[in-house]
Amino acid sequence: MADALHQLETHIDYQFSDKQLLQRALRHRSANQAANGNHMERLEFLGDAVLGLVISKYLHHRFPDKQEGDLSRMRAALVRKESLFEVAQAWGLMAYLNVGDSERSDKLRGIKSPSIAANAVEAVIGAVFEDGGWDAAHQLVKRTWQGMLKGIGDVDTRDAKSRLQEFTQSKEWGLPKYELFDLGVGCSPRFRAKCRVNGELLGEGCGERKKIAEIEAAEQAWQQLKN
Amino acid sequence: MADALHQLETHIDYQFSDKQLLQRALRHRSANQAANGNHMERLEFLGDAVLGLVISKYLHHRFPDKQEGDLSRMRAALVRKESLFEVAQAWGLMAYLNVGDSERSDKLRGIKSPSIAANAVEAVIGAVFEDGGWDAAHQLVKRTWQGMLKGIGDVDTRDAKSRLQEFTQSKEWGLPKYELFDLGVGCSPRFRAKCRVNGELLGEGCGERKKIAEIEAAEQAWQQLKN
Repeated sequence: MADALHQLETHIDYQFSDKQLLQRALRHRSANQAANGNHMERLEFLGDAVLGLVISKYLHHRFPDKQEGDLSRMRAALVRKESLFEVAQAWGLMAYLNVGDSERSDKLRGIKSPSIAANAVEAVIGAVFEDGGWDAAHQLVKRTWQGMLKGIGDVDTRDAKSRLQEFTQSKEWGLPKYELFDLGVGCSPRFRAKCRVNGELLGEGCGERKKIAEIEAAEQAWQQLKN
Repeated sequence: MADALHQLETHIDYQFSDKQLLQRALRHRSANQAANGNHMERLEFLGDAVLGLVISKYLHHRFPDKQEGDLSRMRAALVRKESLFEVAQAWGLMAYLNVGDSERSDKLRGIKSPSIAANAVEAVIGAVFEDGGWDAAHQLVKRTWQGMLKGIGDVDTRDAKSRLQEFTQSKEWGLPKYELFDLGVGCSPRFRAKCRVNGELLGEGCGERKKIAEIEAAEQAWQQLKN
C-alpha cells in the first residue's frame, strides 16, 4: 500500500507529509475502513472549493475581456464531472481507489461509477490543500488542468445555442426548443433549462442566469447529437 | 473620493496597493464609468470563489465530525445573499457604492436593491485577493465573518425539519408537507424541495441531497412562521 501511494504521489508530483490524508482521499464510503466518516467526502467538500478558486483565478487573468457569465460557463465546463473523470484517468486514479464490494465492477478499471473517481480527484485536491496549503494545491491544479485550460479559449469563442441551432437547421430538424424553470429566490443556481430537438429531451442545464442555464442545456444537447 | 476610499480601507482593515481595484469593486454596471466591463462583476466572480474556499476551510476544521452535507448546508447559510448584505451593512458599504441613476433610491442608504451591496461585498473580497493574494483575502474573510462563524454551530445542532414539525404541532396545524423535485443528473444542486404548512407554500430549498433540500425548505418556512 505504501508503495502504491508513493507511485500516485509521483504521478501527481506531490509528496504528502501526512500520508493518511491521501489514504482518506482515496477511500469511498463503501470501503471497510470508512466508518465514522473516515472517507473522502469531507476532503471532497474542501477540494471542490479549492478547485473552484484556482480555476476562477486562472480564467480571471487569462480572459480580461470576458464577462462574468462567460467566465462562469467556462469554469463550469472545467470542473464538471466529465472533466474530473478525465483527470482521474490521467492520474491513473482508479488503480488506487479503496471501494467496498458493492461499488466494484469489471468496468472502469475496478469501479462501477465514474463519479467515485471524479469525487476522489476533488478529495485529493482537498488533501493537498490540507497538507501543503494554498500554494501546493494551486500548483497541483494548474499543472493538472494545463491541457484543458489551454483548450478552453477555443471552446468559448463559440456560443453553444447558436452552434446547436446551426446544426439542427442543417439537418432540417427545425429550431431547438428551450423550457426555462425559475427555481425561486434562495435557490442557487436559480434557473434550470431543458433543451429539446424534435420534441426529444437532449439537454439540461442550470445557472444563476437564464442564459447560462440555456447555454448549458444547449451544450449538453449538442454533445449528444455529435456522438 | 480618495478620502472616502481610505475610510473604507480602514473599516475593512486592508490597504490596497492598487486603489483602482477597490474602485472597480464598488462600481455597478449601471454607473457612468462602467463601460467596457469596468465594473464589479468580474471581481465578484473571483470573490465568490475566494469566500467559498475560506468558509469551507474554516468549517472543515471547526467541525471534524460533521458530514459533507452538513458542511455544505452551513456554507450555504454563510454565503447567501442575506449574509452578504449583513456584511455590507457592517462595512457601511452602501455609502461607497457607485451606481447609476436607474439603481438609486432613498431606501437602503441610496440603492434600490440589497443584492448590489451583497455583490459588492464579494467584489471587494475578490479585489483584496487580486491585490494581496490568498493570505490577505483569507484574513479579511475570517475577520469579517467572525461573528457569524461563531454562531453557526448553534444553528446547526438543531434539525430544521424537527423544529418546524414541533412548532406546527404545538399550534395544531398538523404536519408540514414536502414536495421534492429531482432536477436530474448534471444539475447542481440536484434536488429542490418545497415546504407547505396548512397548504401554504412557506419555504423552498435546494441541495445535492434530498435531505439537504428539505432541511433548507423547512428552515425557510420556520423563519417565515417565526416572524
